[in-house]
Amino acid sequence: MRVVSYGIGVIGQKLANHLLEKEGVEIVGAIDINPKIVGKDLGEVLGSKKLGVKISSDVEKVLKESKPDIVAHTTMSYLRQTYDQFEGILKNGVDVVSTCEELSYPYATKEGTEYAKKIDAVAKKGKAAILGTGVNPGFVMDTLPITLTAVCQKVDDIYIARQMDAATRRIPFQTKIGAGLTVEEFNRKIANHEITGHVGLEQSIQMIADTLGWKLDEIRVEKPSPVVLKKDVASEAIKVPKGNNAGSVQYAYGIVGGKKLITMDFKAYIGAPEEFDAVTIKGVPPINQKISPCTHGDYATIAITANMIPHVMNASPGFWTMKDLPVPHATPKNMRLYVK
Amino acid sequence: MRVVSYGIGVIGQKLANHLLEKEGVEIVGAIDINPKIVGKDLGEVLGSKKLGVKISSDVEKVLKESKPDIVAHTTMSYLRQTYDQFEGILKNGVDVVSTCEELSYPYATKEGTEYAKKIDAVAKKGKAAILGTGVNPGFVMDTLPITLTAVCQKVDDIYIARQMDAATRRIPFQTKIGAGLTVEEFNRKIANHEITGHVGLEQSIQMIADTLGWKLDEIRVEKPSPVVLKKDVASEAIKVPKGNNAGSVQYAYGIVGGKKLITMDFKAYIGAPEEFDAVTIKGVPPINQKISPCTHGDYATIAITANMIPHVMNASPGFWTMKDLPVPHATPKNMRLYVK
Repeated sequence: MRVVSYGIGVIGQKLANHLLEKEGVEIVGAIDINPKIVGKDLGEVLGSKKLGVKISSDVEKVLKESKPDIVAHTTMSYLRQTYDQFEGILKNGVDVVSTCEELSYPYATKEGTEYAKKIDAVAKKGKAAILGTGVNPGFVMDTLPITLTAVCQKVDDIYIARQMDAATRRIPFQTKIGAGLTVEEFNRKIANHEITGHVGLEQSIQMIADTLGWKLDEIRVEKPSPVVLKKDVASEAIKVPKGNNAGSVQYAYGIVGGKKLITMDFKAYIGAPEEFDAVTIKGVPPINQKISPCTHGDYATIAITANMIPHVMNASPGFWTMKDLPVPHATPKNMRLYVK
Repeated sequence: MRVVSYGIGVIGQKLANHLLEKEGVEIVGAIDINPKIVGKDLGEVLGSKKLGVKISSDVEKVLKESKPDIVAHTTMSYLRQTYDQFEGILKNGVDVVSTCEELSYPYATKEGTEYAKKIDAVAKKGKAAILGTGVNPGFVMDTLPITLTAVCQKVDDIYIARQMDAATRRIPFQTKIGAGLTVEEFNRKIANHEITGHVGLEQSIQMIADTLGWKLDEIRVEKPSPVVLKKDVASEAIKVPKGNNAGSVQYAYGIVGGKKLITMDFKAYIGAPEEFDAVTIKGVPPINQKISPCTHGDYATIAITANMIPHVMNASPGFWTMKDLPVPHATPKNMRLYVK
């Protein structure tokens, strides 16, 4: 199985290292625009032995020369940033699995829906398949809750919560949620869009709604709010004095007739007393599900992106979302065995 | 959507009633061999108004006259009992969704594998699709754990537990697990095969192993053991004095090199302090998941059997298992909207 790594950032590197540990997988090309790494050997950047694969910014050349089965794409979150990249891959007839958050379910916005149509058309023309996935969006707040509804005769509403102790995550993540700031600084950064909240809540809501046949009047994504604790907390990198901000909490809703049929409750802060992913379905029968501790974001994103590769390679040409492909699962042995 | 109900027992009746509540579904035929109900109107047996659908034991005639899209099949647990029924439906070119436990994953035994091949061949010849599903086997101890591995880079072993308070279930179920018997009576009924344990553990184990690419040396299904409590317990129907049997506990294992890679821990007894379905995956990352209270068996079986109908109708001809079809989900609105 010949893979090109597109995006050699933190996630791209972890994904490449994971794929290199699999049997039957070869990384035959690497693409990035970062001038600090372009021209270097991928192995060197990954901190392992040289692989004979030079990181290049020339997508066309890499694809033409390396003839990959699939591109593992981990660059940016929004389709306005990634659309041209996808088009460039797909027109070469190469399958794509991507962690681009908006690609996981673009139909939440009009703009995204237009991108999805274009991606589907260019994929079909190039005879390639493309999927957006990840842990969130992609699994814990959409595919998994959707799967849990399979045993429901009737679903009245769904409440999905993810709570993380930011101290256990990467420092850039801790910074991204404003941990350690005063509440004033946090609110200023929210107003400035320096802190933007989680990308994917509206995508997850739309995926659930479409799967259940719910026509939403509105998806309301609230701004992140600060989390102020009554005690000092700290991660290895950041101290949060009592009264300062420890992280953020964000809610989003899928609304029909004024009722919140889908609620997303996303909390990440230093000092969270418990880490969990929880799904509460009111219906027949009701389902109360909890994963505790919560699914570890970085490990899980790498895992599901790699694990979905055979499903994408087996799919017919076009744009696919998690809800339309076969049940996702781990692929611990030779991944080629999963390709039909 | 035209459905024929095949099997008008407890589950068949509940399923028919559920399907009749859906929009866009019509029950156009009913099949059973029970002389007490053959010739009666289905609605009469369901305790509702007459439906103009006579229960018949003539499969061929019902299928030819009613021209269904799919048969909802709920008769028996083993393929040696149900194979001829499936063949009779499939050769008429009609899709099947069935609660037959062994059909959920026949590849656990050599005999089952032979049946699966024959079913696949007759389905393809008749241009029909067939699926075995249900809550267990079919979901809580196989499809759901498989789905949870999607976020794992590596899976070392899986422990799956289901614990039910039998007092909350149907009386035949309480009787089936030997609740209220003395331990001697329980053991005698086990020896006599009057109490047989849960059907489906080996099917669930094989489905997980095949999905993860694990070649098992052995599937070991232990006999059910009695559950003796230190206090009196009771359901509405059955009293269990201290020292008597309150239900049963059963273990099954998928073994490689002497190691139990997959463990099934199935407990059902009157007085269970907690009801849950739990999945514990040792791996990277580890996953500890719990549904509490446990997924209600009867409601859930009805739900998933109905919910899978569109997936079966959309599938290409042949024999399918849950792991190969798209992510399962609830279908709360007009089910026809889900059929491509």
